[in-house]
Amino acid sequence: MNDSSADILWNNFERAFRPQSVAILGASNDATRISGRALHYMKKAGYQGRIYPVNPSRETVQEIKAYASLDAVPEVPDMVLICIAAEKVKDAIRECVAKGAGAAVIYASGFAETGEAGKQLQQEIRALADAGGLRVFGPNCLGLLSTQSGFIGTFSSAFDDGFVSNGNVAVVSQSGAYGGHLAYLCRERNVGIGYWVSTGNELNTDVADCIKWLACQDDVSVIMAFAEGIRDGDKFIDALRTAHEQRKAVIFGKVGGSEAGSVAATSHTASLAGSDEVYDAVFRQYGVYRARTTEEHVDLAYACSRGVYPLDRRLGIITVSGGFGIQLCDAADRYGLEVPPLPPASQEKLKTINPFGGAGNPCDTTAGVLNDMSIISKTFRVMYEEGGYGSVIGSFTMLPASPTYGARMCDAIQAGTVDYKDRPTLLCMAAGKEVIRSYEEAGFLVYSDSDRAALAVSALAYLKDGFDKEINVPDIDLALRRDIGAQMLSEAAAQRLLAGAGLPFLPSGVVCSAEAAVTAAESHGYPVVMKIVSPDILHKTEIGGVILNVDSADACRSAYQTLIERAGTKAPHAHIEGVLVTPMAPKGIETIMGVNRDPVFGPVVMFGLGGIFTELFEDVSFRIAPFDESEARRMIEETRAYGLLKGFRGKPAADIDALARTLAQLSQFAAANADQISSIDLNPVVALEAGRGVFALDAVIVPGEK
Amino acid sequence: MNDSSADILWNNFERAFRPQSVAILGASNDATRISGRALHYMKKAGYQGRIYPVNPSRETVQEIKAYASLDAVPEVPDMVLICIAAEKVKDAIRECVAKGAGAAVIYASGFAETGEAGKQLQQEIRALADAGGLRVFGPNCLGLLSTQSGFIGTFSSAFDDGFVSNGNVAVVSQSGAYGGHLAYLCRERNVGIGYWVSTGNELNTDVADCIKWLACQDDVSVIMAFAEGIRDGDKFIDALRTAHEQRKAVIFGKVGGSEAGSVAATSHTASLAGSDEVYDAVFRQYGVYRARTTEEHVDLAYACSRGVYPLDRRLGIITVSGGFGIQLCDAADRYGLEVPPLPPASQEKLKTINPFGGAGNPCDTTAGVLNDMSIISKTFRVMYEEGGYGSVIGSFTMLPASPTYGARMCDAIQAGTVDYKDRPTLLCMAAGKEVIRSYEEAGFLVYSDSDRAALAVSALAYLKDGFDKEINVPDIDLALRRDIGAQMLSEAAAQRLLAGAGLPFLPSGVVCSAEAAVTAAESHGYPVVMKIVSPDILHKTEIGGVILNVDSADACRSAYQTLIERAGTKAPHAHIEGVLVTPMAPKGIETIMGVNRDPVFGPVVMFGLGGIFTELFEDVSFRIAPFDESEARRMIEETRAYGLLKGFRGKPAADIDALARTLAQLSQFAAANADQISSIDLNPVVALEAGRGVFALDAVIVPGEK
Repeated sequence: MNDSSADILWNNFERAFRPQSVAILGASNDATRISGRALHYMKKAGYQGRIYPVNPSRETVQEIKAYASLDAVPEVPDMVLICIAAEKVKDAIRECVAKGAGAAVIYASGFAETGEAGKQLQQEIRALADAGGLRVFGPNCLGLLSTQSGFIGTFSSAFDDGFVSNGNVAVVSQSGAYGGHLAYLCRERNVGIGYWVSTGNELNTDVADCIKWLACQDDVSVIMAFAEGIRDGDKFIDALRTAHEQRKAVIFGKVGGSEAGSVAATSHTASLAGSDEVYDAVFRQYGVYRARTTEEHVDLAYACSRGVYPLDRRLGIITVSGGFGIQLCDAADRYGLEVPPLPPASQEKLKTINPFGGAGNPCDTTAGVLNDMSIISKTFRVMYEEGGYGSVIGSFTMLPASPTYGARMCDAIQAGTVDYKDRPTLLCMAAGKEVIRSYEEAGFLVYSDSDRAALAVSALAYLKDGFDKEINVPDIDLALRRDIGAQMLSEAAAQRLLAGAGLPFLPSGVVCSAEAAVTAAESHGYPVVMKIVSPDILHKTEIGGVILNVDSADACRSAYQTLIERAGTKAPHAHIEGVLVTPMAPKGIETIMGVNRDPVFGPVVMFGLGGIFTELFEDVSFRIAPFDESEARRMIEETRAYGLLKGFRGKPAADIDALARTLAQLSQFAAANADQISSIDLNPVVALEAGRGVFALDAVIVPGEK
Repeated sequence: MNDSSADILWNNFERAFRPQSVAILGASNDATRISGRALHYMKKAGYQGRIYPVNPSRETVQEIKAYASLDAVPEVPDMVLICIAAEKVKDAIRECVAKGAGAAVIYASGFAETGEAGKQLQQEIRALADAGGLRVFGPNCLGLLSTQSGFIGTFSSAFDDGFVSNGNVAVVSQSGAYGGHLAYLCRERNVGIGYWVSTGNELNTDVADCIKWLACQDDVSVIMAFAEGIRDGDKFIDALRTAHEQRKAVIFGKVGGSEAGSVAATSHTASLAGSDEVYDAVFRQYGVYRARTTEEHVDLAYACSRGVYPLDRRLGIITVSGGFGIQLCDAADRYGLEVPPLPPASQEKLKTINPFGGAGNPCDTTAGVLNDMSIISKTFRVMYEEGGYGSVIGSFTMLPASPTYGARMCDAIQAGTVDYKDRPTLLCMAAGKEVIRSYEEAGFLVYSDSDRAALAVSALAYLKDGFDKEINVPDIDLALRRDIGAQMLSEAAAQRLLAGAGLPFLPSGVVCSAEAAVTAAESHGYPVVMKIVSPDILHKTEIGGVILNVDSADACRSAYQTLIERAGTKAPHAHIEGVLVTPMAPKGIETIMGVNRDPVFGPVVMFGLGGIFTELFEDVSFRIAPFDESEARRMIEETRAYGLLKGFRGKPAADIDALARTLAQLSQFAAANADQISSIDLNPVVALEAGRGVFALDAVIVPGEK
């Protein structure tokens, strides 16, 4: 696809989501059939554009004049809904292109998801569509809609008994059924949806394309996305970057993280799964919130749609009974929120208002509020004004549902929070829908469960941090590009290559005689380490190919002979390049750094403590290459090992700056040589005390073409 | 309290929950007031017993004949509801005892929760009640009820707009407000509650008492409990043991686990908090499920109330769209469930039924079911019959809500599951209450969110494992009782004590001369370790008081002198008992074992890998002493370190049997000397290869009276 057809495709998003005219190929007169539903929905939703049913065997379809063919339609439709069987779709796409349509939806299944023949057919259709600048949704999808325009180009049964209300939330789902489920739940939860789209087989429009376009719409603030897998990592990251620039909250339900889930995802969509940790890394890098459950997805979209984010992670808690407050403290802790106490003077003030209540934080108003609702107002005011909390959760159990107290309570909370609308006030209550609506209309976020409210605050704070975070993805440094070749490299060669790219190694040299070894050792100073060098011996210790603590010229000569003999005996066919001589490593904390090529996102850098910390405790973090030192620092800080590195039990801190610098540099090297490297291992990388640097003691590069 | 009054108190539970007659002190004619509500509720609930309002200023109260005093009531009431102010309660209790009542509820606050004077008053009332065999609920509580009897001895507003339906679930809550909240949610969720009780300040009836009594009722299968803290660990464990014997599911909401939560709990109830990990250990030991959130609490009670538990952790998944199945796989993984595939022949069979569906597990029926509902029946049947799954979750999104498909779908699922009612079938759906009820009536558990369904299966499996688990709490072995004294013990003394109690140490002896050291060393064989021995030097390494690898007689003499000199210089006032000589420890995996006295549960044994594994990764497990070897093994298996111990990366397994034996023996020693020991540390305990045993290399005992 060339640039100008990419531009045309981009511009056709507008025609797809807000078409002035829609043709429906195979439109049915029966409003309950798949081919009749979109038309029925559009009539019901009051679509203002022009609808052209195409059905050669009818004069009218659902009381609208029908046409015998797309060609016969009296204008160029912006959007064509293709409600016909898979085998006729290719011709239909050809007609769409010929007519000059902007976009089309293919509902039918029977394409790439069914096997090779279907894949081939889908490819052919894609070629036609791309060439004609036709933006295609599907095949095997449920279409799209935009609420404001009344264009409902879907047959999803989610809208059977009513549409979503308009709002600043957009839904993008690879799975139409899941997208419909989200829409249904959003309607139940009073979350307004402006745009909804399912991408199905993603012929030339994928989840990333939709996120990018929706992120650029002024009337979208929140994007709920769902996918089982992403095919094009670069395009996906570009979309997330756009969303970040536009300060749009992206909440992503990426499933398939478990082994069974990944197997199911692969067989279901034939997407390349990519590693789940890598998705996590991408989401963290771009401030995207990953929702693990549907409930969390909707809970958070609900909160984000109000557009008010916590100032910080300091949470105020108000309850009418102690137990709820304690439970909320536990939940806050679970989700990384702080519950600092009110200043002592404020506590005193609250005690004069309500002598028997708890006044620290949580503030327990007790059932005394039933006699005097102003206690609630005053408590909220003190917590916001004097406690300065970033957000406040009020837990009021069933009281809001009480005919006697409900409305008065709402007024009291309103009076206490009216000056603090810059911060979200969340209320936990058990009540019916009408009561909940009345509290929502007063400006509060309502949750039925306090744990979910705490999780929502934490997620809002995460998104806020994401908005505020500067994302500096460095350019790829072409000066780091090398000719790596397809052969395995010896450790010495790998070290040379990486040291030349700015990665820190101890001084070393490869020698080919015992005397040369002595000379090298004396230039470093004893003791030294000596290792056999061969591209054919990857696991040197297994053949006794490493000798530590060589502390004299005699020992050095003898070590040289021993290494050569061992290699000769235990790896007789290995090509021996010589023996590496390096100083003994200074003591420090041993970390590992690695690079692996992810099928979706390319080179991914890993950091951890190594050994059982990595393998048994899974204490590692990942980032897509390249990244800068601040991102590397965040990557280090994410591990539990960070507790060790920053100085554990009075020990001095390790050189975290140097670790971050090394990780960033490794990411640059990996990015510059992405097409030549399958993996890199630096194990161990020893971190000395702060200011003294880090040293990689071993390096393995596995070349591999992309 | 002597045994016979304890018996009377126990028997009075019956009179409390199912009273034949109820007197109400201070009964109000106003049904909306606290003092009028219970009477109003009982009339509404059709209480069959006799009600005696006591109110000297009225002829009738709420149309029932009133009495001037309790004394004037014409029979001995089983239960007295005391709806009068705190200062009059003591007299009222005296009257209850005089009259011979079985039980009383004190609603008023103003007792132990308000400070010393209130605490004193509560103590005095308790003495009266205990002496008179009067079972008292409260003070500062919301009372109790039993649905079947129509006795509603509470003023909780949770029942304002309707009672719970009768059922096999009992609610026991320290907090009345929280208990009310649970009741409200149970009613919303269609969970029937037979008994409900709030314990408040727990004068002579606490959560443990109620759990024990309820566990003995035939019409109770599930106990939902909530508490901020437990005061009497032994009584609590006895109650949980009774529940276990009776195979009653106990779901416990214990809050206050976080630091902020614990502070709030302490200030709120003045309960001794106890360590949160210890509660976890107790719950695990007795198969009690700890619900972290209210939602989880209710979700699980709902599932348990049906009385059908999964056969095992193998989960079958049926969906109508792939994405939901993948999400469920992830959730199953999160909660420790397995999702093994169907046998190949069964997959083939399903493919003939539904060619385009996924047939492994998850089984994706696709929207094809809309044309042929029998696909659903057949899929369920194959999964249960041939897959043999312990339970099946079906995820059907909004389809059950469809007027066209809903009822047919329910019939189809029914047809597919009718022969497998020994296993729970859970359905995930978005639908209104009526639809959900219809599915529930057909025998299914309905969840709105698939994650919550997976969590419920996992929790059911946990409870089932608990039922099936044999709990052998060994008797305390009085042969292990020692006179430990109040003084700090030297390492040598601690070792002697523990070795005498059967804990494994290397052979060692304390010597008082260099020559004696040589003799000792030669009896062990070189190399040896030598350590200074003094009860005043706890951290020997800090003064250089440990010398390793002593490998000759000369080295031994010199080490002896060095140790004595260092002690003289660096700890001049320490009493030196001599020098300990032991063999160098054989190589193995270093673990730590410890004992700490918990204020609630007494001696608690800890196990972990030590060092940063314990402190940074918090990879430790706990159990209440004493316990047997099987429990010790479970304790080891709970840690991540178990992955290392059972043989990591091809290394041989450690002697886990010996570790378990040692832990069990340590727990026995701790239990036998519970009143004399504040803590014990064995660090490290080296585990050799399987069959070769374990050795503790260091021991510290901190004595301390209870």
